[in-house]
Amino acid sequence: MTFGLAHHDPSPLYVSDPHPALGDTVALRVRVPDAHPLERLHLRYLLDGEGTFVEAHPAQQGDGETWWSAQVVMTNPTLQYRWFLDGPLHPGGAWLNGTGVHARDVPDVADFRLITAAPPAWVEDAVVYQVFCDRFARSADADARPLPGWALPAAWDDPLRTYAQRQQFQLYGGDLDGVAEHLDHLVSLGVTVLYLTPFFPAESNHRYNATSFDEVDPLLGGDAALTRLIDAAHARGIRVIGDFTPNHTGSGHGWFRTGRDDPASAERGFYTWDADGPGYASWLGFASLPKLNHASAELTERLTGPDGVLRRWLRAGLDGWRIDVANMTGRLGAVDDNRAVAHRIREAVDAEGDRWLVAEHFYDLHHDVDGFTWHGAMNYTGFSRPAWAWLEQPDSAEEDAHFAVTARIPAVDGPGLVAVHRDFTAQVPWSVTTASFNIVGSHDTGRIRWRVGDHRGRVLAALGLAHTLPGAPMLYYGDEIGLTGSTGEYGRRPFPWQAPQTWDHDLLAAVRRLGALRHELPALRRGGLRWIGAVADAVAFVREAPEGSVLVLVARDSAAPIEVDAALLPGVASGRAVLGEGITVADGRVSLRAHEAGVAVWAW
Amino acid sequence: MTFGLAHHDPSPLYVSDPHPALGDTVALRVRVPDAHPLERLHLRYLLDGEGTFVEAHPAQQGDGETWWSAQVVMTNPTLQYRWFLDGPLHPGGAWLNGTGVHARDVPDVADFRLITAAPPAWVEDAVVYQVFCDRFARSADADARPLPGWALPAAWDDPLRTYAQRQQFQLYGGDLDGVAEHLDHLVSLGVTVLYLTPFFPAESNHRYNATSFDEVDPLLGGDAALTRLIDAAHARGIRVIGDFTPNHTGSGHGWFRTGRDDPASAERGFYTWDADGPGYASWLGFASLPKLNHASAELTERLTGPDGVLRRWLRAGLDGWRIDVANMTGRLGAVDDNRAVAHRIREAVDAEGDRWLVAEHFYDLHHDVDGFTWHGAMNYTGFSRPAWAWLEQPDSAEEDAHFAVTARIPAVDGPGLVAVHRDFTAQVPWSVTTASFNIVGSHDTGRIRWRVGDHRGRVLAALGLAHTLPGAPMLYYGDEIGLTGSTGEYGRRPFPWQAPQTWDHDLLAAVRRLGALRHELPALRRGGLRWIGAVADAVAFVREAPEGSVLVLVARDSAAPIEVDAALLPGVASGRAVLGEGITVADGRVSLRAHEAGVAVWAW
Repeated sequence: MTFGLAHHDPSPLYVSDPHPALGDTVALRVRVPDAHPLERLHLRYLLDGEGTFVEAHPAQQGDGETWWSAQVVMTNPTLQYRWFLDGPLHPGGAWLNGTGVHARDVPDVADFRLITAAPPAWVEDAVVYQVFCDRFARSADADARPLPGWALPAAWDDPLRTYAQRQQFQLYGGDLDGVAEHLDHLVSLGVTVLYLTPFFPAESNHRYNATSFDEVDPLLGGDAALTRLIDAAHARGIRVIGDFTPNHTGSGHGWFRTGRDDPASAERGFYTWDADGPGYASWLGFASLPKLNHASAELTERLTGPDGVLRRWLRAGLDGWRIDVANMTGRLGAVDDNRAVAHRIREAVDAEGDRWLVAEHFYDLHHDVDGFTWHGAMNYTGFSRPAWAWLEQPDSAEEDAHFAVTARIPAVDGPGLVAVHRDFTAQVPWSVTTASFNIVGSHDTGRIRWRVGDHRGRVLAALGLAHTLPGAPMLYYGDEIGLTGSTGEYGRRPFPWQAPQTWDHDLLAAVRRLGALRHELPALRRGGLRWIGAVADAVAFVREAPEGSVLVLVARDSAAPIEVDAALLPGVASGRAVLGEGITVADGRVSLRAHEAGVAVWAW
Repeated sequence: MTFGLAHHDPSPLYVSDPHPALGDTVALRVRVPDAHPLERLHLRYLLDGEGTFVEAHPAQQGDGETWWSAQVVMTNPTLQYRWFLDGPLHPGGAWLNGTGVHARDVPDVADFRLITAAPPAWVEDAVVYQVFCDRFARSADADARPLPGWALPAAWDDPLRTYAQRQQFQLYGGDLDGVAEHLDHLVSLGVTVLYLTPFFPAESNHRYNATSFDEVDPLLGGDAALTRLIDAAHARGIRVIGDFTPNHTGSGHGWFRTGRDDPASAERGFYTWDADGPGYASWLGFASLPKLNHASAELTERLTGPDGVLRRWLRAGLDGWRIDVANMTGRLGAVDDNRAVAHRIREAVDAEGDRWLVAEHFYDLHHDVDGFTWHGAMNYTGFSRPAWAWLEQPDSAEEDAHFAVTARIPAVDGPGLVAVHRDFTAQVPWSVTTASFNIVGSHDTGRIRWRVGDHRGRVLAALGLAHTLPGAPMLYYGDEIGLTGSTGEYGRRPFPWQAPQTWDHDLLAAVRRLGALRHELPALRRGGLRWIGAVADAVAFVREAPEGSVLVLVARDSAAPIEVDAALLPGVASGRAVLGEGITVADGRVSLRAHEAGVAVWAW
């Protein structure tokens, strides 16, 4: 833990322009507590690939701190930088990078990165709510719709089928008008972005095997229902983003059928036909999910051209796309077109204005998500896994044999949570983190309620982290009322609108409060991040923005106290508790003492 | 330090084929000491970008160890992998990657990497000797050559000029026949590769500002002298590599003059004319070094085409190229063609057969040097800086004001040396490390003798690390006799052939012994790397290959003992000291105790 040493992060408090253009001059600042003064400070950055040093100077003093400043021109689209510290604490010199202060050489991967690309401004205020279309809500119109042959219809309160019972075909009949009927519930949670799993026609309840990109699934209410939903959401200040899979289509897709049946067709080139397995390249060998071949110029046009799928549906009102399987897209054997495909999709999305582009990515983001491809990601690696590793009950690992190994995460204590979060967050530009989803669970994972052993306080700890760390908190529909489920499949329960007596109303109230806080306190949206301390069962950090500061304590249990010198948190004594208990400021000391799992916030 | 835990590295002992082809099945092994057994072991790798797990099984037992094995197909050109450990020591699971065992999630940057590209087989046996052409040796023929107008001639024993005295024009008149006359000296050092700084005509003594790529500088003896040198070297089993700068030419180059004077010329497109500074893009703003623009197809042809500069001189007998300023090549403002240019140069070099391609790169290699671009690099970051940081005297930093800041490295103790070396080495494929130069100094840095405070033992420690850690040891001409100098410029002293009484003959004998050991012990060339222990003033590691093992102790001073259980080094008791003192094996313990700076080696 390097709290109390020099600090910098690329948030507005430390960077004169968090979204500079090429050629702009940017001032970068470092805060240095007077207790550990510096003698000299240099910025090192890569200029056309060459390490270059700029001297920083003390620019401002007071409140027990000195702020040093250096100016640098954005010569390259990515300014990759770190600081070299000289002072009594660092007689041999030390580096300050995204993982803190190091009295030895450290690799560049955790250098700070400031980039000339930016996500839409509205993204930093986002609270996201993910709806799995078949399971959130069913409008009265749904009853009249004819069912496709594959469907195994279910009543809203039927139990979930198992894998052996062909769970992917179990259709509860949730639809888009159903979603529209419950937008006020989203408003009550502070939600500003609705993320819908795929709405294209498909041959499964999850719809990740699309048969067409030309219409909204009639089972969901068709195109008109999407328009109604978008209009209703927009009327409430809620944006809507869709879900698109550029990695594959369903084997029932018209493109695939044409390509399969007509070797002379343009669609033939949309897929790779000489591969092992089903006779064509597919997602992990599943014949139902033929993999798209982005070497086809015609496919590129149909996806990202002016009238391509991605732009057409944005013009129909969507505010962005979540990109399914982004980490595999364009990758097959010796071919790796991932970056080129991502750039084309980004270009297409940017062409339609301020839209959000978020990648599904279950792995280390830093190579694929650099701010110039996807704006951000579903941040499983940098947010979810450290949170789960800290909060998970030992016996709550995914029970599905398929995931038993792949989902394993080494358990950590509080300092471990900080280390993992810091390691991964340091690798991507700040704007990538803030444009990413802080996820506690999704349709692909076990529910947070299940992971933490059905413990409300720990659900709150998880959602507390999601709402207070940098990034957009994402609620997976029903997390807020305590829905549970041991895997992605078993978490896709219909939202029990019909049975409010089963809801965890205390949890719901707390989640609403978290959403409100996120909007009340700019520091939660635009603040930097300084980790203050960590003990086994609690972690504490401060988010600081020009508009104010917030101190956060998150605990997984009754925890040992964390105490810090109030001088290291200028202004903290003027603050007040705005959520939870356990933070006190007295006699120049800040004391953080959790008595149970949950989250506490102090603001000034 | 994780010695005594599970170990893997991508060296031949652990990888069934260190240079597999796409589609090959490879067996990967992990050694697990019986003292800390595993219950389960899984390999995790990225398959088309998706995390995929393969179960490993115990395959071999004995000598107090169990070897686990997993098989995997080389589906992608880079197999990026790590291991997930389950066992009593790791109740929550742990990862094993290139930096050791971690009981928490760690980023992918230190994952192991096995690649389908390979350097020439002869590279792993290399001992490199760098000659700065103007300063190594002068043949009798040199006297008769007319000098260019810029030259400030010097007698061989004249002192070096200072910057103010226009040091770059001081011409001592070293030439290629001079080099050929001293090849037996190289043979005595075990040298197998002679690396020549540029031999093209230029307007300086360093010749990094070429005026032509069509001939060898007549001042060096011209084309015929190069042929004589190559023939003489090859006759002694020494290969010769040249030095090429694809980043820029000299402003006296014919291409630049044509491009400047004739806007309609093809050469106009070889440079970037609308930039700041001298009116065209140049190396760090120096008008004398106009930067090449690799967007020009004609330039590409002239550099890397069948009759381009790079291939033509390889056909003339060169065995490879060292690429100057590789880190900046193709990078200018918003343009980053570095990777494409590197790929084209690699393709051109590969087209001429088994040639070695080594990048100058002063920064973190892992992004630019992945094994598919340059084979390896002048490994300043992964080798030189940790060695310097450990061995440097506090008052020996580069004295040139220009380098005073940029050359700073936080000082480290032994454990710090291990940590830095491991962090950087883990980021690149094993074959990149073994195809890189282990450098203790070059024409661009202060001399090692100067860095360590004129201390023979510490020079030996540095050269000991260079000869025993993975990578090709590089001697900068004269290091072996104790030449000194505080900066790159002040280290470029003429080799004092005329004054053998000034040589450090004890050092020379020791360096010859190191060179011989490198050839005698296959483990120094093909062995893996396990760090055994580190104290402030000494580090110890073992290199193990199918053909044998070597234990190395390197000290910067009299050091505290390092002791390990001999059971962790199967066979160590059957070994013997082959260099230096301080390693003993008795009663089941290996004791490593250095009494002074230097290097000791134990082999079995």
